[in-house]
Amino acid sequence: MIFSQLISSLKEGDSGLISYYIGNNPELKEGASLELAQNNQITFLEENNILKTILKESNAGAILIPNTEELINIAKSKNVAWATIKNPRLAFAEVLTLLSPPKLRTPSIHKSAVLGEQVEIGENVSIGANASIGERCNLGNNTVIHPGVVIYEDVTIGTDSEIHANSVIHRRSKIGNNCIIHSNAVIGSEGFGFIPTNSGWKKMPQTGLVVIEDEVEIGCSSAIDRPSVGETRIGQGSKIDNLVQIGHGVTTGKGCAMASQVGVAGGAQIGNGVILAGQVGIANRVKVGDNVVASSKSGITSNISSGEIVSGFPAIPNRLWLRCSAAFNKLPEMVKIIRYLKKGASG
Amino acid sequence: MIFSQLISSLKEGDSGLISYYIGNNPELKEGASLELAQNNQITFLEENNILKTILKESNAGAILIPNTEELINIAKSKNVAWATIKNPRLAFAEVLTLLSPPKLRTPSIHKSAVLGEQVEIGENVSIGANASIGERCNLGNNTVIHPGVVIYEDVTIGTDSEIHANSVIHRRSKIGNNCIIHSNAVIGSEGFGFIPTNSGWKKMPQTGLVVIEDEVEIGCSSAIDRPSVGETRIGQGSKIDNLVQIGHGVTTGKGCAMASQVGVAGGAQIGNGVILAGQVGIANRVKVGDNVVASSKSGITSNISSGEIVSGFPAIPNRLWLRCSAAFNKLPEMVKIIRYLKKGASG
Amino acid sequence: MIFSQLISSLKEGDSGLISYYIGNNPELKEGASLELAQNNQITFLEENNILKTILKESNAGAILIPNTEELINIAKSKNVAWATIKNPRLAFAEVLTLLSPPKLRTPSIHKSAVLGEQVEIGENVSIGANASIGERCNLGNNTVIHPGVVIYEDVTIGTDSEIHANSVIHRRSKIGNNCIIHSNAVIGSEGFGFIPTNSGWKKMPQTGLVVIEDEVEIGCSSAIDRPSVGETRIGQGSKIDNLVQIGHGVTTGKGCAMASQVGVAGGAQIGNGVILAGQVGIANRVKVGDNVVASSKSGITSNISSGEIVSGFPAIPNRLWLRCSAAFNKLPEMVKIIRYLKKGASG
Repeated sequence: MIFSQLISSLKEGDSGLISYYIGNNPELKEGASLELAQNNQITFLEENNILKTILKESNAGAILIPNTEELINIAKSKNVAWATIKNPRLAFAEVLTLLSPPKLRTPSIHKSAVLGEQVEIGENVSIGANASIGERCNLGNNTVIHPGVVIYEDVTIGTDSEIHANSVIHRRSKIGNNCIIHSNAVIGSEGFGFIPTNSGWKKMPQTGLVVIEDEVEIGCSSAIDRPSVGETRIGQGSKIDNLVQIGHGVTTGKGCAMASQVGVAGGAQIGNGVILAGQVGIANRVKVGDNVVASSKSGITSNISSGEIVSGFPAIPNRLWLRCSAAFNKLPEMVKIIRYLKKGASG
Repeated sequence: MIFSQLISSLKEGDSGLISYYIGNNPELKEGASLELAQNNQITFLEENNILKTILKESNAGAILIPNTEELINIAKSKNVAWATIKNPRLAFAEVLTLLSPPKLRTPSIHKSAVLGEQVEIGENVSIGANASIGERCNLGNNTVIHPGVVIYEDVTIGTDSEIHANSVIHRRSKIGNNCIIHSNAVIGSEGFGFIPTNSGWKKMPQTGLVVIEDEVEIGCSSAIDRPSVGETRIGQGSKIDNLVQIGHGVTTGKGCAMASQVGVAGGAQIGNGVILAGQVGIANRVKVGDNVVASSKSGITSNISSGEIVSGFPAIPNRLWLRCSAAFNKLPEMVKIIRYLKKGASG
Repeated sequence: MIFSQLISSLKEGDSGLISYYIGNNPELKEGASLELAQNNQITFLEENNILKTILKESNAGAILIPNTEELINIAKSKNVAWATIKNPRLAFAEVLTLLSPPKLRTPSIHKSAVLGEQVEIGENVSIGANASIGERCNLGNNTVIHPGVVIYEDVTIGTDSEIHANSVIHRRSKIGNNCIIHSNAVIGSEGFGFIPTNSGWKKMPQTGLVVIEDEVEIGCSSAIDRPSVGETRIGQGSKIDNLVQIGHGVTTGKGCAMASQVGVAGGAQIGNGVILAGQVGIANRVKVGDNVVASSKSGITSNISSGEIVSGFPAIPNRLWLRCSAAFNKLPEMVKIIRYLKKGASG
């Protein structure tokens, strides 16, 4: 696609095109990183990116940059095709979508797929090889089920959703529209509920269900458990990375983001727009307010008010934690000084 | 099911029915949480549950409560069907089992399942679509293999066990009776054993096997590795949550519980009744005594005596850790005071 | 296999046979641990192994030991077959390989496997039941695809590689020679890339690919994500354990080892020979030098120079961390002393 076509599309997009220079209007094949981009590739740079210094050396055919005099001057000096954009990263996402359009899939149900009785299938649905769909499931229009997926009975999946290979969706789960369930994820498995008795752990039946709202992504090998009663719910537009555990009865608000290996224990209630970094843990039944951010490896063991940024275990306000962590590294020295002072005091 | 029928069953159960009031003997359809229960639903409340305050407003058709005057009075004031129980949670588990009886499954071997030679199959066994069973496997009576499960050769599974979709069981593994292996779990994979040499990592062959004793559950996407020689063993009645790693040669005692994302490194020996909370790590070859409890995110790097409760990393007694953690948050202040004192001492 | 045959093979191997005593030349069936070995089993012992004390009681038929007078004397006193070896563990690995030769597999493509168009398959390739291979994939000689594996389109796999059951390999991934992908792993899934906008998280298309170099192992349920542009690369000879997350655009050098539940965030650059212990986390875009060792649960949040050993979160040099951790446990006491001193100072 030639650069001028991309510019036309960016004008229609959400990234905020400001100005541009078509130059020799290069034919662009794909996106690339600033370091590696060649003359048939397009790249981007964000304000404050430390890669700014290598822009001069870039061989990219075209660049998307923020609207700063410094960067425009570098671009001009290279005589490369460029555009200044309010949000260059978003522009790059739009450009990648244009350059690699979703491949045309001929909707079809593979002859090796096994469908239970009373399965209802919308228009343009694809079901891959060796997939297994339980009784009374309902698949919305344009939904794609990849090979090896197993869906238990009474599952509902909305329109335009994609269920990647070998993932498993348990009975009664409800998955919305425009969702992506990544490979080997498990939705609606039994919550971990056992009651201690004299004769060992007695199983609490897990009769509830999982609800995944619209525009949600669930990462590879992540598990979203169903509760004993009621529901586990992932709010609209939330994005969950790989290897994440969502315990039974958890609810999350809309637009949350959870990085890989996060674990949320049973019954936790998470607000809207919450961001959990990698390997964060949240304890049972804790309430996390809207727009809370927890930095990596932190462990939230009690309720957190909306808007807080927390770190550490047990999690405390991020600013305090940064100071405590810095002081932690000085502990051996502190011990020495205290010993010295104590000696003086008692001397 | 009407309330009086549930009461009859609870009399036969283990939860300790004390007294009850049939009231208008409601027809109950299912269980629900105290907050959400409607008049065709049953719920429960435990002693010291903070939800006690909302019992007055509950619309539940029937409630299972501990035997306290306060709660009985509230129940009476609502004119709702109720029962007092020694262990209301256990009663609720029994009631959920009654209200949602395991669905009648017509045992069958799906025509798309692939069975190796010399596979022995007991009575009433179900094997789901596209499952693959290796040579010389032995499946006990009433065992259920869900769709997409792959079992390598020479595996033995006992009676009444359930292997959920797309899980994988490697050669020679032995799984007992009444076990549940959840979706996408992997049993008996090769342990992570490599020897450093001048030409890189040399693989230690993993010729051992995994033994899962009776009444064990293994969570979704958890991995139980086999060792180079000997066995990895999960003790009878142990319950392991999702995304847990059990390294090669680990042994656990009976009745352990491990929450999600726990990692137990190779050769660790874990006693009976050990409870590991979420994201706990246990180092290679460590011995953990009976009934040890490790709180979430703790890391056990050396042997722990029976009965201890530990926290933190490296794990220390929980009481000490609580005090240390509290002090950690005061470190910046401590640094200041020490500076001030030091100035005084040297001034 | 009789002991003298094993000795002949060890002479050809890399473990450094020094001396041996054939004794009654026992017939050996398999390897076993020192504690459990019987007279038809062989075992080994390393220098400084605390099990040295139980060598006297071992019932093993043959033992591989380091070349120390003490151990040779014990061996002689038992009149057991023995050999002294420079690297007894490596010798044991070689012996296990000899005693359990890889089973002869008749290469075949199971009739239930589904192959897309233009798939190219080398000589002696095995494809298991219900596997699904996408269009234009290329499988090298002697490669084994186990049952239930799903491979998307345009994937290349080299020679002599083994892809275990129910793992998933996404489009355009390149896997080298002599690799092992363990069960339920996911290679080449979409990286976790989203841009915050006023209307929620906007997906960054993940158009890059994953490259797995030769002799790499990827553990069960681990996930290696592909990036938005460019590649994610796992260096030759690296070994990755179960439940590990490798984010989009990560590169690792040659000969790295990562234990279970490690998480490496997007764009991190890891050198050669890096060892990451269990549950370690590495932050976005961090650079980790050659031969760095990170102990368990540590979290690397900034660049680490080659050769460093680090611990804790945020990770600091291991020696410092050991002293800080020891001091952490004395914090309550320190608080008391500081209070006492402060009282004195202000008194």
